[in-house]
Order: sequence, then C-alpha cells, then structure tokens
Amino acid sequence: MEVINLSEKFGKFSDHFSPKIIAELNGQQVKLGKFKGEFVWHKHAGEDELFLVIKGKFFMDLSDRTLEINEGEMIVIPKGTMHRPRSEEEVHVMLFEPAGTLNTGDVNNELTKNDPERL
Amino acid sequence: MEVINLSEKFGKFSDHFSPKIIAELNGQQVKLGKFKGEFVWHKHAGEDELFLVIKGKFFMDLSDRTLEINEGEMIVIPKGTMHRPRSEEEVHVMLFEPAGTLNTGDVNNELTKNDPERL
Repeated sequence: MEVINLSEKFGKFSDHFSPKIIAELNGQQVKLGKFKGEFVWHKHAGEDELFLVIKGKFFMDLSDRTLEINEGEMIVIPKGTMHRPRSEEEVHVMLFEPAGTLNTGDVNNELTKNDPERL
Repeated sequence: MEVINLSEKFGKFSDHFSPKIIAELNGQQVKLGKFKGEFVWHKHAGEDELFLVIKGKFFMDLSDRTLEINEGEMIVIPKGTMHRPRSEEEVHVMLFEPAGTLNTGDVNNELTKNDPERL
C-alpha cells in the first residue's frame, strides 16, 4: 500500500494514446494516459470506460456529437458506444476500466497496446 | 452520457463523511466526499477502495502507520484492511469502489449512510 502521486507518474512516460497502469482494484484498473492528436474510432463490447481530465482538455467524438472535457471534468463511455478521443494539445487523462480493457477496443491496428506498462 | 464537472458536484453538498454517487460503471461507483475531522475505524470485507484527493489533504490511519495523501495523490485500501480517514481541514476526495460499498464498512453507527445520495 503506497501513496501514488499522479504528477510523478505522468512524468515517467511521454508516448501518446498508450495508457499505463498505476493501480488495480476490484478487477478494475486505473490508468494514466497522454493524448495528443486523433485516436482511432472504436468501441468496447463489454466494458464501460471512465475518462477524467487531470490537465488540459480533449474532445470526445461520438457518432452524433462531440463533447469537450476540460480539466476537473470526466465522462463515462458506456460499453458498445463508438467513440474517438481527440486533442489538439497534449492532455493528461486518468482512466478507470476493467482489467484487460484494450485501448483500441474492437479495432486492432498500429495503435493497439496489448500489454500496457505498469508504472 | 454527459460531462461531469467535479467542482460543480462538490458545490452541491456540504456534509462530511457522506460520499455522494456521481457515476456508475462496470458495477463500480464513483463518489465524491468531503472529509473533516476523524472518521470511524473500519474495514470492508469484500471491497477494495480508492481515494483520490481533488483538493486539500488528509491522513489515512492504518493499524501500523499513517499515510498523508495530498492533492493529486491517491491510495488504494485493499479489502480487509483497517483504516480511518482523518483531516484537520476540509478535504475533497473522489472515491472509486464497488456499488453498494458502505462508508463505514463493518461498523454500523451514526456515521453510516445506507443509501448515498446521487448528484
């Protein structure tokens, strides 16, 4: 059991759209990610996904609209929902999702990270 | 699906040690709580519990030591672990835990909230 400092963890990586695991509880994982640019459109068949902005802001494109999520704001994307995170400037995001959730969901491409790093 | 602003949600309540539900996903709940003073020693038989400090700081007393959790820091208390949150000044905390987790765990007293409010 240890105190986890988010800034310190964010300082340990610089790659985009490749969330790192910082904690696990009740079969869920807490991950930290840096987003910049456009991610891939995807959905998760069985997993709801929470995004909390720690620093900066990003846009979440949905099939019928786009939401802007600013620092201190969060959104839950229900399973089965097509979505695409997008950010002009780098944004720091915390994610909560079931262990094993794949970053690209039902898509498998060069952005897919099958075995996220643990910080 | 909506963007949830933490400051706006924190502005909706003022009572201490009575976390409110702001989101639910994968059978887990996200709650916001304001802590001030000493809570009750307790443990959760089956639930791990995450505390993330959004504003301020608090102390988590454990059986063998005390951890200080500052703004931007978090801790996961594993199930079965005796703990007591304590804070001199009011602190704003986000909790992540399985739906139905009781704030006082195995203790039932005047601090117990059986049916947390949803904001």
